[in-house]
Amino acid sequence: MPRTHSEVIVAGIGQTPVGEHWDLSLRQLATHAIFDALDQAAGLRPQVMYVGNMLAATASRQANLGALLTENAGLSGIEGVTVEAADASGGAALRMAYLAVLSGAVDVAIAVGVEKYTDVIGPESETLLSQMLDADFEAAQGLTPISLAGLLFHRYLAEYSADRAAFGGFPEVAHANGATNLNAMFQRAMGAGVYQKRASKDAQVLNLFDVAPYADGAAAVILAREDALPEGWPEKRVRLIGSSLVTDTLSIHDRPAPLVWDAARLSVERACRAAGVMPKDLDFFEVHDATSLHAALSLEAAGFASQGQGWMLAKDDVIGLSGQIPISTFGGLKARGHPLGATGIYQAVEAVLQLRGEAGANQVQGARLGLIQNLGGMAATAAAHILAI
Amino acid sequence: MPRTHSEVIVAGIGQTPVGEHWDLSLRQLATHAIFDALDQAAGLRPQVMYVGNMLAATASRQANLGALLTENAGLSGIEGVTVEAADASGGAALRMAYLAVLSGAVDVAIAVGVEKYTDVIGPESETLLSQMLDADFEAAQGLTPISLAGLLFHRYLAEYSADRAAFGGFPEVAHANGATNLNAMFQRAMGAGVYQKRASKDAQVLNLFDVAPYADGAAAVILAREDALPEGWPEKRVRLIGSSLVTDTLSIHDRPAPLVWDAARLSVERACRAAGVMPKDLDFFEVHDATSLHAALSLEAAGFASQGQGWMLAKDDVIGLSGQIPISTFGGLKARGHPLGATGIYQAVEAVLQLRGEAGANQVQGARLGLIQNLGGMAATAAAHILAI
Repeated sequence: MPRTHSEVIVAGIGQTPVGEHWDLSLRQLATHAIFDALDQAAGLRPQVMYVGNMLAATASRQANLGALLTENAGLSGIEGVTVEAADASGGAALRMAYLAVLSGAVDVAIAVGVEKYTDVIGPESETLLSQMLDADFEAAQGLTPISLAGLLFHRYLAEYSADRAAFGGFPEVAHANGATNLNAMFQRAMGAGVYQKRASKDAQVLNLFDVAPYADGAAAVILAREDALPEGWPEKRVRLIGSSLVTDTLSIHDRPAPLVWDAARLSVERACRAAGVMPKDLDFFEVHDATSLHAALSLEAAGFASQGQGWMLAKDDVIGLSGQIPISTFGGLKARGHPLGATGIYQAVEAVLQLRGEAGANQVQGARLGLIQNLGGMAATAAAHILAI
Repeated sequence: MPRTHSEVIVAGIGQTPVGEHWDLSLRQLATHAIFDALDQAAGLRPQVMYVGNMLAATASRQANLGALLTENAGLSGIEGVTVEAADASGGAALRMAYLAVLSGAVDVAIAVGVEKYTDVIGPESETLLSQMLDADFEAAQGLTPISLAGLLFHRYLAEYSADRAAFGGFPEVAHANGATNLNAMFQRAMGAGVYQKRASKDAQVLNLFDVAPYADGAAAVILAREDALPEGWPEKRVRLIGSSLVTDTLSIHDRPAPLVWDAARLSVERACRAAGVMPKDLDFFEVHDATSLHAALSLEAAGFASQGQGWMLAKDDVIGLSGQIPISTFGGLKARGHPLGATGIYQAVEAVLQLRGEAGANQVQGARLGLIQNLGGMAATAAAHILAI
């Protein structure tokens, strides 16, 4: 018999502030988050470290982060590898850690997400991001992730006659939540009407407020098999009860319906099935709001809105902290920031804070069940995890 | 109870020739190997694909190979991510596939190794390889993997008073075996005395014959839980019975004894313990002979020679196909070629051919138990797997 999912618990979390860390190297950033997580999991020593990262090889000319980061954390001799799935690398690393613990071969695993984006500046940085697209058929034509999202946004507005200005609800909620997250890149709420003013000018363009900022950051999560915990471990235990990772066609022009994100949908379905829960049971949903369009399509894919109607949920009383389905509770990619390969681990850390009731001003009251979803590129990869207390 | 290791079997293998594939792109190379493996595993559909690759982001500006290769193999919708640990990426991907099947969450997994090294030519290609070293403390000083191996070779010769010319036995055996491997990059035995002549001239330098050629190639291995096999599946089943992956300090100057490869030693110990076998039981050993020094140190680390005496095994009657412990049975990295992130999967494919008795002129007679070891950088990572029939 395989182990049951209820045995995988989160034994420690750590995160650095997200932003431009000119003074910290990749290994320093990661080590801060790892040490914080190890401190929380006092007495547990990970046997494996999976590192979610996208840009180290190109931006920092550094491969083999598994060896580098186990070394820098004083953990040489354990297992350590990099897991990459564009900006879903963090979610993918969490998935690998989950499978390792589930396998029974490993008692304690640490999933680390780290990105040092600011090692590259200037036009080159945008080129690096295009790695997440199809190099031969998309990037070679000059497409970047944001320009491709812009094209999809055009199509979304045209196909569904969506209200352009309504999308402002996504960044408004995100920035409102980011304002009280000390680890967020932007800790300031948006002024009233700012978005509407901009949206009326650039009707079909994703504007500054629609696009999440790429950034530096590191976060870590320690998973443990429950029967490996030392005696006396606190009873308040966040459990990882569902996990999935799904791919879709990488080139968006090869998809039959580019505005229907199959991988995003399937990842939620599979994670929910594994966890034995329904989306309606969820108390919050950390979405991958790389753009406002991503937020709308993710809500549709997860079944919270019909196709073409995700934008209608962009209101505080629906997605705000006290809404029907709170999203981006610590600011999401938009306000907390989007450290690419680290983002999926930040989502996990934030979900744990919610479920432990340690979210402070960002607390979703009574949160007992949360979904986190990390997308790679235009949802070519979707990693979904369900956490519960 | 966790699943027992005896339940993981190899249900299909595939490989392309190793060499300079100017006419094939990364996705084409990989897809050839994947289709071959799928053909062998008729009726089994993988639920996950782990891609071992080191250079795609830098050499081909392509990340997210999980989505790219599941798409190109017609498998979109399954799980797919890249696993990276420098030139141990293939072994790391095999390890992830093993853990996924062992977890019970997955019945069938495919581990793919692919490298398209020739997308970059000229001096830049050597720089790319230095990613596998410590970027800040080794590569920044101008070190490359081969120059670093050269420094270690100096030290080895001095410390152990080893016979320089004796190292020739490693490439001689490798090229003798490569001569009958149709997938090898170099299918020609070395002339008698060639190595000795060169070695006497460049006494302390790793020469052309000591260093494995970096190359293009792709290979794939399908793992399945035995109880997921359809009825009537052939009884001759190769089993993956032991697996480990171990890290060591990335910077070699930070290791207390740079000539003792701890990760290589530990990976063999842990894989053997998991499999319940002893190194002396092994019928062959696919070593990571990136250089002749790597071969010597790997044999020492695995316990086949004492410290400083690995070079003494470099003779046909010890490491040849009929020797005490055959190594590099299809030519190893030296003659089959070293397609970096794909190498570990080639080793697995070759081990399966040996254990099935399908190795033709390269057959190790009566092979029933084999060890494969894939190293990342200067053994900063070591992945070891034990296969049996």
